[in-house]
Amino acid sequence: MSDTQSISPRTQFCALIGNPVGHSLSPAIHNAAFTATAQDFVYVACPVEDLKNALAGMRALGNFRGMSITIPHKIDAMKYVDEVAEVDRAIGSINTVICREGKLTGFGTDGPGALKALVDAGVELEKKNLLMLGCGGAARAIAFTLAYQNCLAELAMLDINEDLLQELSADLRAGTRTPIMSSVMNEASLAVAMAKADIIIHCTPVGMHPKEEVSLIPAELFRAGQVVFDVVYNPLETKLLKEAKASGLQTISGVEMFINQAVLQFEQFTGVDAPIDVMRRVVMEQLSS
Amino acid sequence: MSDTQSISPRTQFCALIGNPVGHSLSPAIHNAAFTATAQDFVYVACPVEDLKNALAGMRALGNFRGMSITIPHKIDAMKYVDEVAEVDRAIGSINTVICREGKLTGFGTDGPGALKALVDAGVELEKKNLLMLGCGGAARAIAFTLAYQNCLAELAMLDINEDLLQELSADLRAGTRTPIMSSVMNEASLAVAMAKADIIIHCTPVGMHPKEEVSLIPAELFRAGQVVFDVVYNPLETKLLKEAKASGLQTISGVEMFINQAVLQFEQFTGVDAPIDVMRRVVMEQLSS
Repeated sequence: MSDTQSISPRTQFCALIGNPVGHSLSPAIHNAAFTATAQDFVYVACPVEDLKNALAGMRALGNFRGMSITIPHKIDAMKYVDEVAEVDRAIGSINTVICREGKLTGFGTDGPGALKALVDAGVELEKKNLLMLGCGGAARAIAFTLAYQNCLAELAMLDINEDLLQELSADLRAGTRTPIMSSVMNEASLAVAMAKADIIIHCTPVGMHPKEEVSLIPAELFRAGQVVFDVVYNPLETKLLKEAKASGLQTISGVEMFINQAVLQFEQFTGVDAPIDVMRRVVMEQLSS
Repeated sequence: MSDTQSISPRTQFCALIGNPVGHSLSPAIHNAAFTATAQDFVYVACPVEDLKNALAGMRALGNFRGMSITIPHKIDAMKYVDEVAEVDRAIGSINTVICREGKLTGFGTDGPGALKALVDAGVELEKKNLLMLGCGGAARAIAFTLAYQNCLAELAMLDINEDLLQELSADLRAGTRTPIMSSVMNEASLAVAMAKADIIIHCTPVGMHPKEEVSLIPAELFRAGQVVFDVVYNPLETKLLKEAKASGLQTISGVEMFINQAVLQFEQFTGVDAPIDVMRRVVMEQLSS
């Protein structure tokens, strides 16, 4: 049941489009944030198959301020917006569209959300060796965003899918000046990479609910001073993070990246500072319910 | 500020489109009705210039259930829906679109809203002489709807615009079997028409806020047993209605038609009975604020 009686004729409109959208936390997070900051906005989740017309339609609504885009439209959405930043064109997908004065600008929040999680945790990237496990969609976005910072000593990537690994490596080498190392993941290559890594970002689904009792990294490979960031946020603390913490390492949960992505969208939608504590509380409530 | 925290990923979407929409009561009325009936729906007012893309976009949203359409799109909207009832095609405009299984059906509520106001007030139309003052957009819709009932003895129309009067008369004669009489409005024609009329529907802006101290009908023309319906709803009781009531006549305020229009839309949007008392209360609160 909706309690929407405060919606006025001047309420600004934001939406999630994708298919399916039935389990999205975004309406709860954004609407709570709008209320907390007294923004006369509403956010609605819309199942969409016809992406082109949905975007043309949003553009026609004078109170449309922005949208989140999810599967299966993250790649095709780039075709229907007016502007996409260079880094997002290199990544090849977007998950957010902002409407300002009738112009649609697309961008992704995976990379910036991960970067902000690292920065907020006090992690220095300058001259560090970064190891990424996995090279799927989220990994691609994070790798490009961090490589674009142009400050890492090296970005190493391991994955079991050699084709995907070669493609991402080649794209990163072509699109950025960060030294890239890649290797098919196996016991030996992981041990070598872990011996060198300062920061590890885990971007595979391993350890995600309901298969929580697994981790890609044997605990004996951890070394003092390493930072371990798992993009998985369900559970909030994966087996990987538990074991890293038990080894004395700094850990960052994927939930920080998840919250940051909503924060970045909210600030683009509204132009005001996001109420991070409120958004965090909603995420935690929703994830624990 | 919006309080929209109950919006879920399954919330159904309704909208008003038009330009301007900033003073519409529809968001307040419909959202209150959704809440009162525990319907997981939200209604947002959207200023729209590009009608074609707005409608194509709404069609692409899987949770779009329907919309209200206001100026300047009531005529053109007929081009972009899949189905319009015969009476609405004859009227030539629509103010509501419903989406069912991807199909858009357009219809108008002016006529049905006025008819329901008469029926709810216990007014019999059978074999009665109906007089309409004014033949603009609302009058045209009401005239067609009542003439389609095919039960009036005669539908008489007066207006100062002879071209408009001739056009509507010809269309009504071509489209319905109800006897139609029309005459340019002046003191004499009004007196003749009032001497014959059982039911009078006033469809001009005369007496509307802020020029409330005028009425088209001199009080001495009222006859016992007449029913006077004024489509003007601001003020709730126009000078016309005050004088008719003082003459002992039954009166119906335009606010009844206004509420009925929202009721008819709500029931088409949701498929459930409208909470009329809640909707009436919101209208009264909004009109008196």
